[in-house]
Amino acid sequence: MNPNEMRSAAELKDRLLLADIGNTHFHIYNGYEVEHLSYEEAIRQYRNEALCYISVKQHLDSTIENIASWKNISQQIHLAGAYETMGVDRRALCLSHENGLFVDAGSAITVDMMEDGKYRGGFILPGLKAMLDAYRSISPVLDTELNKTISLAQLPVTTKDGISYGIIASIKALIDKHSDGKKLYFTGGDGKFLSSFFEAATYDEMLVFNGMRKVIKESEIC
Amino acid sequence: MNPNEMRSAAELKDRLLLADIGNTHFHIYNGYEVEHLSYEEAIRQYRNEALCYISVKQHLDSTIENIASWKNISQQIHLAGAYETMGVDRRALCLSHENGLFVDAGSAITVDMMEDGKYRGGFILPGLKAMLDAYRSISPVLDTELNKTISLAQLPVTTKDGISYGIIASIKALIDKHSDGKKLYFTGGDGKFLSSFFEAATYDEMLVFNGMRKVIKESEIC
Repeated sequence: MNPNEMRSAAELKDRLLLADIGNTHFHIYNGYEVEHLSYEEAIRQYRNEALCYISVKQHLDSTIENIASWKNISQQIHLAGAYETMGVDRRALCLSHENGLFVDAGSAITVDMMEDGKYRGGFILPGLKAMLDAYRSISPVLDTELNKTISLAQLPVTTKDGISYGIIASIKALIDKHSDGKKLYFTGGDGKFLSSFFEAATYDEMLVFNGMRKVIKESEIC
Repeated sequence: MNPNEMRSAAELKDRLLLADIGNTHFHIYNGYEVEHLSYEEAIRQYRNEALCYISVKQHLDSTIENIASWKNISQQIHLAGAYETMGVDRRALCLSHENGLFVDAGSAITVDMMEDGKYRGGFILPGLKAMLDAYRSISPVLDTELNKTISLAQLPVTTKDGISYGIIASIKALIDKHSDGKKLYFTGGDGKFLSSFFEAATYDEMLVFNGMRKVIKESEIC
Protein backbone atom coordinates (compact mmCIF):
# COMPACT_ATOMS: atom_id res chain seq x y z
CA MET A 1 0.00 0.00 0.00
CA ASN A 2 1.20 3.48 -0.86
CA PRO A 3 2.21 5.31 2.38
CA ASN A 4 0.17 8.32 1.28
CA GLU A 5 -2.99 6.26 1.26
CA MET A 6 -2.41 5.21 4.86
CA ARG A 7 -2.69 8.76 6.19
CA SER A 8 -5.92 9.69 7.94
CA ALA A 9 -8.02 12.65 6.84
CA ALA A 10 -6.96 14.52 9.99
CA GLU A 11 -3.30 14.01 9.19
CA LEU A 12 -3.87 15.28 5.67
CA LYS A 13 -5.62 18.38 6.95
CA ASP A 14 -2.77 19.16 9.34
CA ARG A 15 -0.36 18.93 6.51
CA LEU A 16 -2.31 20.88 3.92
CA LEU A 17 -0.13 21.46 0.91
CA LEU A 18 -0.23 24.79 -0.88
CA ALA A 19 0.73 25.26 -4.52
CA ASP A 20 1.30 28.35 -6.62
CA ILE A 21 1.19 27.07 -10.21
CA GLY A 22 3.18 29.31 -12.50
CA ASN A 23 3.67 29.29 -16.25
CA THR A 24 6.47 26.76 -16.12
CA HIS A 25 6.69 25.36 -12.57
CA PHE A 26 4.81 24.37 -9.46
CA HIS A 27 5.88 26.21 -6.31
CA ILE A 28 4.75 24.03 -3.41
CA TYR A 29 4.82 24.72 0.29
CA ASN A 30 4.95 21.25 1.86
CA GLY A 31 4.66 22.39 5.47
CA TYR A 32 8.42 22.65 5.90
CA GLU A 33 9.85 24.41 2.87
CA VAL A 34 9.04 25.71 -0.60
CA GLU A 35 9.79 23.32 -3.45
CA HIS A 36 10.01 24.28 -7.11
CA LEU A 37 8.92 21.34 -9.25
CA SER A 38 8.05 20.63 -12.86
CA TYR A 39 4.37 19.96 -13.54
CA GLU A 40 5.10 16.24 -13.99
CA GLU A 41 7.16 15.95 -10.83
CA ALA A 42 4.57 17.82 -8.74
CA ILE A 43 1.76 15.55 -9.95
CA ARG A 44 3.80 12.36 -9.45
CA GLN A 45 4.85 13.34 -5.95
CA TYR A 46 1.66 14.86 -4.54
CA ARG A 47 -1.34 13.55 -6.50
CA ASN A 48 -2.62 11.53 -3.52
CA GLU A 49 -2.33 14.36 -0.98
CA ALA A 50 -4.70 17.15 -0.04
CA LEU A 51 -3.51 20.29 -1.78
CA CYS A 52 -4.96 23.77 -2.36
CA TYR A 53 -3.66 25.66 -5.37
CA ILE A 54 -3.83 28.88 -7.27
CA SER A 55 -2.86 29.06 -10.92
CA VAL A 56 -1.93 31.99 -13.16
CA LYS A 57 -3.03 29.90 -16.15
CA GLN A 58 -6.63 30.41 -17.26
CA HIS A 59 -6.78 26.94 -18.76
CA LEU A 60 -5.09 24.29 -16.71
CA ASP A 61 -4.24 20.81 -17.89
CA SER A 62 -7.29 18.59 -17.28
CA THR A 63 -4.97 16.12 -15.51
CA ILE A 64 -4.53 18.72 -12.78
CA GLU A 65 -8.19 19.71 -12.64
CA ASN A 66 -9.20 16.06 -12.29
CA ILE A 67 -7.07 15.24 -9.26
CA ALA A 68 -9.73 14.65 -6.60
CA SER A 69 -7.66 15.69 -3.59
CA TRP A 70 -6.55 18.99 -5.17
CA LYS A 71 -8.63 22.16 -4.96
CA ASN A 72 -8.29 25.27 -7.10
CA ILE A 73 -8.94 28.32 -4.91
CA SER A 74 -7.95 30.95 -7.51
CA GLN A 75 -11.51 32.29 -7.64
CA GLN A 76 -11.52 32.86 -3.89
CA ILE A 77 -8.44 35.13 -3.80
CA HIS A 78 -10.23 38.47 -3.47
CA LEU A 79 -8.14 41.61 -3.16
CA ALA A 80 -9.85 44.95 -2.59
CA GLY A 81 -8.95 47.40 -5.34
CA ALA A 82 -7.47 44.77 -7.68
CA TYR A 83 -8.19 44.94 -11.41
CA GLU A 84 -9.92 42.22 -13.37
CA THR A 85 -6.92 40.70 -15.16
CA MET A 86 -4.45 40.98 -12.27
CA GLY A 87 -2.69 37.62 -11.84
CA VAL A 88 -3.90 35.50 -8.91
CA ASP A 89 -0.31 35.07 -7.61
CA ARG A 90 0.05 38.85 -7.39
CA ARG A 91 -3.26 39.06 -5.51
CA ALA A 92 -2.17 36.38 -3.03
CA LEU A 93 1.19 38.12 -2.61
CA CYS A 94 -0.49 41.44 -1.82
CA LEU A 95 -2.78 39.75 0.72
CA SER A 96 0.25 38.69 2.80
CA HIS A 97 0.49 42.12 4.50
CA GLU A 98 -1.84 45.11 4.88
CA ASN A 99 0.84 47.63 3.90
CA GLY A 100 3.95 47.57 1.77
CA LEU A 101 5.53 47.41 -1.64
CA PHE A 102 5.60 43.85 -2.99
CA VAL A 103 8.16 42.75 -5.56
CA ASP A 104 7.82 39.35 -7.23
CA ALA A 105 10.97 38.82 -9.28
CA GLY A 106 10.47 35.89 -11.62
CA SER A 107 10.18 35.65 -15.41
CA ALA A 108 8.53 39.06 -15.08
CA ILE A 109 9.01 41.44 -12.16
CA THR A 110 5.80 42.77 -10.66
CA VAL A 111 5.81 45.63 -8.17
CA ASP A 112 2.57 46.26 -6.27
CA MET A 113 1.54 48.69 -3.58
CA MET A 114 -0.76 47.93 -0.64
CA GLU A 115 -2.14 50.54 1.76
CA ASP A 116 -4.38 49.57 4.68
CA GLY A 117 -5.34 46.28 3.05
CA LYS A 118 -6.25 47.92 -0.25
CA TYR A 119 -4.44 47.48 -3.56
CA ARG A 120 -3.15 50.84 -4.84
CA GLY A 121 -1.71 49.85 -8.23
CA GLY A 122 1.55 48.55 -9.55
CA PHE A 123 3.74 48.01 -12.56
CA ILE A 124 5.49 45.24 -14.47
CA LEU A 125 9.08 44.94 -15.65
CA PRO A 126 10.69 42.13 -17.65
CA GLY A 127 12.59 39.65 -15.47
CA LEU A 128 16.40 39.61 -15.39
CA LYS A 129 16.66 36.82 -17.97
CA ALA A 130 14.15 38.50 -20.33
CA MET A 131 16.14 41.74 -20.02
CA LEU A 132 19.43 40.04 -20.95
CA ASP A 133 17.63 38.37 -23.88
CA ALA A 134 16.33 41.79 -24.96
CA TYR A 135 19.85 43.26 -25.17
CA ARG A 136 21.03 40.14 -27.03
CA SER A 137 18.22 40.55 -29.57
CA ILE A 138 19.37 44.10 -30.39
CA SER A 139 22.99 43.34 -31.28
CA PRO A 140 25.68 40.67 -30.66
CA VAL A 141 27.71 43.50 -29.10
CA LEU A 142 25.13 43.63 -26.29
CA ASP A 143 25.14 39.87 -25.67
CA THR A 144 26.46 39.53 -22.13
CA GLU A 145 25.91 38.01 -18.70
CA LEU A 146 24.81 39.95 -15.65
CA ASN A 147 27.62 41.26 -13.46
CA LYS A 148 25.99 40.23 -10.19
CA THR A 149 28.43 42.24 -8.09
CA ILE A 150 27.87 45.49 -10.03
CA SER A 151 28.33 48.61 -7.94
CA LEU A 152 25.54 51.16 -8.20
CA ALA A 153 27.70 53.80 -6.54
CA GLN A 154 29.27 55.08 -9.77
CA LEU A 155 28.45 55.15 -13.46
CA PRO A 156 29.98 52.16 -15.26
CA VAL A 157 32.51 52.37 -18.10
CA THR A 158 32.25 49.00 -19.86
CA THR A 159 29.49 47.48 -22.00
CA LYS A 160 28.90 44.57 -19.63
CA ASP A 161 28.66 46.86 -16.61
CA GLY A 162 26.64 49.43 -18.56
CA ILE A 163 24.08 46.69 -19.23
CA SER A 164 24.14 45.23 -15.70
CA TYR A 165 23.79 48.74 -14.29
CA GLY A 166 21.00 49.53 -16.76
CA ILE A 167 19.01 46.49 -15.64
CA ILE A 168 19.49 46.70 -11.88
CA ALA A 169 19.72 50.46 -11.34
CA SER A 170 16.58 51.11 -13.39
CA ILE A 171 14.60 48.57 -11.36
CA LYS A 172 16.01 49.99 -8.13
CA ALA A 173 15.41 53.62 -9.09
CA LEU A 174 11.73 53.01 -9.81
CA ILE A 175 11.16 50.91 -6.68
CA ASP A 176 13.00 53.48 -4.54
CA LYS A 177 10.76 56.18 -5.99
CA HIS A 178 7.70 54.37 -4.62
CA SER A 179 9.05 52.86 -1.40
CA ASP A 180 8.95 56.10 0.59
CA GLY A 181 8.30 54.95 4.15
CA LYS A 182 6.84 51.63 3.03
CA LYS A 183 8.09 48.19 3.92
CA LEU A 184 9.67 46.43 0.98
CA TYR A 185 8.93 42.74 0.44
CA PHE A 186 10.64 40.55 -2.16
CA THR A 187 9.79 37.08 -3.37
CA GLY A 188 10.38 35.00 -6.52
CA GLY A 189 13.41 33.31 -8.06
CA ASP A 190 15.48 36.51 -8.36
CA GLY A 191 13.94 38.12 -5.28
CA LYS A 192 16.76 37.35 -2.89
CA PHE A 193 19.38 38.67 -5.30
CA LEU A 194 17.45 41.87 -6.11
CA SER A 195 16.64 42.53 -2.45
CA SER A 196 20.37 42.73 -1.74
CA PHE A 197 20.45 46.10 -3.54
CA PHE A 198 18.02 47.63 -1.03
CA GLU A 199 18.86 48.67 2.49
CA ALA A 200 15.77 47.58 4.38
CA ALA A 201 14.14 44.88 2.28
CA THR A 202 12.64 41.58 3.39
CA TYR A 203 13.02 38.52 1.21
CA ASP A 204 10.42 35.87 1.99
CA GLU A 205 9.50 32.97 -0.27
CA MET A 206 6.40 32.35 1.87
CA LEU A 207 4.60 35.60 0.96
CA VAL A 208 2.27 34.15 -1.70
CA PHE A 209 1.53 31.13 0.53
CA ASN A 210 0.86 33.40 3.50
CA GLY A 211 -1.67 35.27 1.37
CA MET A 212 -3.30 31.96 0.44
CA ARG A 213 -3.35 30.83 4.09
CA LYS A 214 -5.08 34.04 5.11
CA VAL A 215 -7.84 33.42 2.55
CA ILE A 216 -8.14 29.74 3.55
CA LYS A 217 -8.36 30.59 7.24
CA GLU A 218 -10.96 33.32 6.76
CA SER A 219 -13.23 31.42 4.39
CA GLU A 220 -12.46 27.83 5.46
CA ILE A 221 -12.42 26.74 1.85
CA CYS A 222 -9.77 24.05 2.25
CA MET B 1 26.02 63.38 -67.63
CA ASN B 2 24.97 62.80 -64.02
CA PRO B 3 24.32 66.18 -62.31
CA ASN B 4 26.41 65.02 -59.34
CA GLU B 5 29.48 64.73 -61.52
CA MET B 6 29.11 68.35 -62.62
CA ARG B 7 29.69 69.70 -59.12
CA SER B 8 33.07 71.29 -58.47
CA ALA B 9 35.29 70.14 -55.58
CA ALA B 10 34.53 73.41 -53.79
CA GLU B 11 30.83 72.83 -54.06
CA LEU B 12 31.26 69.31 -52.69
CA LYS B 13 33.22 70.60 -49.75
CA ASP B 14 30.59 73.21 -48.91
CA ARG B 15 27.97 70.56 -48.89
CA LEU B 16 29.86 67.88 -47.01
CA LEU B 17 27.50 65.04 -46.23
CA LEU B 18 27.71 63.38 -42.84
CA ALA B 19 26.53 59.84 -42.19
CA ASP B 20 26.03 57.88 -38.97
CA ILE B 21 25.79 54.28 -40.12
CA GLY B 22 23.80 52.22 -37.65
CA ASN B 23 23.04 48.51 -37.50
CA THR B 24 20.09 48.76 -39.84
CA HIS B 25 20.02 52.25 -41.36
CA PHE B 26 22.04 55.20 -42.58
CA HIS B 27 21.33 58.47 -40.81
CA ILE B 28 22.51 61.20 -43.16
CA TYR B 29 22.75 64.91 -42.62
CA ASN B 30 22.51 66.36 -46.10
CA GLY B 31 23.13 69.98 -45.14
CA TYR B 32 19.45 70.69 -44.64
CA GLU B 33 17.92 67.84 -42.69
CA VAL B 34 18.57 64.38 -41.33
CA GLU B 35 17.46 61.51 -43.54
CA HIS B 36 17.04 57.91 -42.44
CA LEU B 37 17.76 55.60 -45.35
CA SER B 38 18.30 51.92 -45.97
CA TYR B 39 21.88 50.95 -46.86
CA GLU B 40 20.85 50.41 -50.49
CA GLU B 41 19.01 53.70 -50.77
CA ALA B 42 21.86 55.65 -49.17
CA ILE B 43 24.41 54.15 -51.56
CA ARG B 44 22.19 54.68 -54.60
CA GLN B 45 21.48 58.29 -53.70
CA TYR B 46 24.86 59.51 -52.45
CA ARG B 47 27.59 57.28 -53.87
CA ASN B 48 28.96 60.07 -56.04
CA GLU B 49 29.05 62.73 -53.34
CA ALA B 50 31.70 63.59 -50.77
CA LEU B 51 30.59 62.06 -47.51
CA CYS B 52 32.22 61.51 -44.11
CA TYR B 53 30.84 58.69 -42.03
CA ILE B 54 31.11 56.88 -38.76
CA SER B 55 29.90 53.32 -38.39
CA VAL B 56 29.03 51.25 -35.32
CA LYS B 57 29.75 48.12 -37.35
CA GLN B 58 33.27 46.77 -37.04
CA HIS B 59 33.07 45.14 -40.46
CA LEU B 60 31.36 47.23 -43.06
CA ASP B 61 30.18 45.97 -46.39
CA SER B 62 33.10 46.28 -48.84
CA THR B 63 30.74 48.12 -51.21
CA ILE B 64 30.69 50.97 -48.71
CA GLU B 65 34.41 50.87 -47.97
CA ASN B 66 35.20 51.01 -51.68
CA ILE B 67 33.22 54.15 -52.47
CA ALA B 68 36.03 56.56 -53.33
CA SER B 69 34.27 59.78 -52.29
CA TRP B 70 33.27 58.40 -48.88
CA LYS B 71 35.57 58.57 -45.87
CA ASN B 72 35.31 56.58 -42.65
CA ILE B 73 36.33 58.82 -39.75
CA SER B 74 35.35 56.41 -36.96
CA GLN B 75 38.98 56.05 -35.84
CA GLN B 76 39.29 59.83 -35.45
CA ILE B 77 36.41 60.22 -32.98
CA HIS B 78 38.45 60.54 -29.79
CA LEU B 79 36.61 61.11 -26.54
CA ALA B 80 38.59 61.66 -23.34
CA GLY B 81 37.65 59.06 -20.74
CA ALA B 82 35.83 56.77 -23.16
CA TYR B 83 36.30 53.00 -22.92
CA GLU B 84 37.68 50.83 -25.68
CA THR B 85 34.47 49.21 -26.91
CA MET B 86 32.25 52.28 -26.58
CA GLY B 87 30.29 52.73 -29.80
CA VAL B 88 31.53 55.48 -32.11
CA ASP B 89 28.05 57.01 -32.36
CA ARG B 90 27.96 57.40 -28.57
CA ARG B 91 31.41 59.04 -28.66
CA ALA B 92 30.31 61.49 -31.33
CA LEU B 93 27.11 62.22 -29.41
CA CYS B 94 29.10 62.99 -26.23
CA LEU B 95 31.43 65.30 -28.18
CA SER B 96 28.50 67.56 -29.10
CA HIS B 97 28.60 69.40 -25.74
CA GLU B 98 31.15 69.70 -22.93
CA ASN B 99 28.59 69.00 -20.19
CA GLY B 100 25.35 67.13 -19.98
CA LEU B 101 23.52 63.83 -19.90
CA PHE B 102 23.11 62.37 -23.40
CA VAL B 103 20.30 59.96 -24.22
CA ASP B 104 20.28 58.17 -27.58
CA ALA B 105 16.97 56.32 -27.81
CA GLY B 106 17.11 53.87 -30.70
CA SER B 107 17.10 50.05 -30.81
CA ALA B 108 19.02 50.38 -27.54
CA ILE B 109 18.91 53.41 -25.25
CA THR B 110 22.29 54.70 -24.17
CA VAL B 111 22.66 57.28 -21.41
CA ASP B 112 26.07 58.96 -21.07
CA MET B 113 27.44 61.64 -18.81
CA MET B 114 29.89 64.37 -19.83
CA GLU B 115 31.61 66.75 -17.42
CA ASP B 116 33.98 69.46 -18.63
CA GLY B 117 34.58 67.66 -21.92
CA LYS B 118 35.36 64.35 -20.24
CA TYR B 119 33.32 61.17 -20.43
CA ARG B 120 32.18 60.10 -16.95
CA GLY B 121 30.43 56.80 -17.72
CA GLY B 122 27.00 55.68 -18.75
CA PHE B 123 24.57 52.83 -19.04
CA ILE B 124 22.52 50.96 -21.60
CA LEU B 125 18.84 50.05 -21.62
CA PRO B 126 16.91 48.09 -24.24
CA GLY B 127 14.98 50.32 -26.67
CA LEU B 128 11.20 50.66 -26.44
CA LYS B 129 10.57 48.02 -29.12
CA ALA B 130 13.00 45.54 -27.53
CA MET B 131 11.29 46.09 -24.17
CA LEU B 132 7.84 45.36 -25.60
CA ASP B 133 9.30 42.25 -27.29
CA ALA B 134 10.76 41.19 -23.93
CA TYR B 135 7.36 41.28 -22.22
CA ARG B 136 5.82 39.42 -25.16
CA SER B 137 8.48 36.70 -24.86
CA ILE B 138 7.53 36.06 -21.23
CA SER B 139 3.81 35.42 -21.69
CA PRO B 140 1.00 36.14 -24.20
CA VAL B 141 -0.72 37.92 -21.29
CA LEU B 142 2.05 40.56 -21.43
CA ASP B 143 1.81 41.06 -25.21
CA THR B 144 0.72 44.67 -25.58
CA GLU B 145 1.38 48.00 -27.24
CA LEU B 146 2.83 51.02 -25.51
CA ASN B 147 0.27 53.42 -24.09
CA LYS B 148 2.04 56.55 -25.34
CA THR B 149 -0.09 58.88 -23.25
CA ILE B 150 0.55 57.01 -19.99
CA SER B 151 0.47 59.22 -16.91
CA LEU B 152 3.42 58.83 -14.56
CA ALA B 153 1.57 60.73 -11.82
CA GLN B 154 -0.12 57.66 -10.32
CA LEU B 155 0.44 53.92 -10.20
CA PRO B 156 -1.41 52.13 -12.99
CA VAL B 157 -4.10 49.49 -12.50
CA THR B 158 -4.20 47.61 -15.80
CA THR B 159 -1.72 45.24 -17.43
CA LYS B 160 -1.17 47.49 -20.46
CA ASP B 161 -0.57 50.54 -18.31
CA GLY B 162 1.49 48.52 -15.83
CA ILE B 163 3.80 47.60 -18.71
CA SER B 164 3.88 51.08 -20.29
CA TYR B 165 4.58 52.57 -16.88
CA GLY B 166 7.24 49.93 -16.19
CA ILE B 167 9.07 50.81 -19.39
CA ILE B 168 8.87 54.61 -19.28
CA ALA B 169 8.94 55.29 -15.54
CA SER B 170 11.98 53.02 -15.04
CA ILE B 171 13.90 54.83 -17.78
CA LYS B 172 12.84 58.19 -16.38
CA ALA B 173 13.62 57.31 -12.76
CA LEU B 174 17.18 56.30 -13.60
CA ILE B 175 17.81 59.31 -15.85
CA ASP B 176 16.32 61.67 -13.23
CA LYS B 177 18.64 60.15 -10.63
CA HIS B 178 21.65 61.23 -12.71
CA SER B 179 20.43 64.48 -14.23
CA ASP B 180 20.86 66.55 -11.09
CA GLY B 181 21.69 70.02 -12.41
CA LYS B 182 22.84 68.69 -15.78
CA LYS B 183 21.42 69.58 -19.15
CA LEU B 184 19.53 66.70 -20.68
CA TYR B 185 19.95 65.99 -24.40
CA PHE B 186 17.91 63.46 -26.37
CA THR B 187 18.44 62.09 -29.83
CA GLY B 188 17.47 58.92 -31.75
CA GLY B 189 14.23 57.55 -33.17
CA ASP B 190 12.38 57.50 -29.84
CA GLY B 191 14.24 60.49 -28.45
CA LYS B 192 11.54 63.07 -29.12
CA PHE B 193 8.86 60.89 -27.53
CA LEU B 194 10.95 60.05 -24.45
CA SER B 195 12.07 63.66 -23.98
CA SER B 196 8.42 64.65 -23.56
CA PHE B 197 8.44 62.95 -20.13
CA PHE B 198 11.15 65.34 -18.86
CA GLU B 199 10.63 68.94 -17.89
CA ALA B 200 13.76 70.56 -19.26
CA ALA B 201 15.04 68.26 -21.98
CA THR B 202 16.39 69.17 -25.40
CA TYR B 203 15.65 66.92 -28.35
CA ASP B 204 18.10 67.43 -31.20
CA GLU B 205 18.64 64.98 -34.04
CA MET B 206 21.83 66.88 -34.97
CA LEU B 207 23.80 65.93 -31.82
CA VAL B 208 25.82 63.07 -33.31
CA PHE B 209 26.50 65.13 -36.45
CA ASN B 210 27.54 68.12 -34.36
CA GLY B 211 30.05 65.89 -32.59
CA MET B 212 31.36 64.72 -35.97
CA ARG B 213 31.58 68.31 -37.24
CA LYS B 214 33.60 69.31 -34.18
CA VAL B 215 36.14 66.55 -34.90
CA ILE B 216 36.23 67.38 -38.62
CA LYS B 217 36.76 71.08 -37.91
CA GLU B 218 39.52 70.49 -35.38
CA SER B 219 41.48 67.90 -37.32
CA GLU B 220 40.55 68.90 -40.88
CA ILE B 221 40.15 65.26 -41.85
CA CYS B 222 37.35 65.75 -44.35
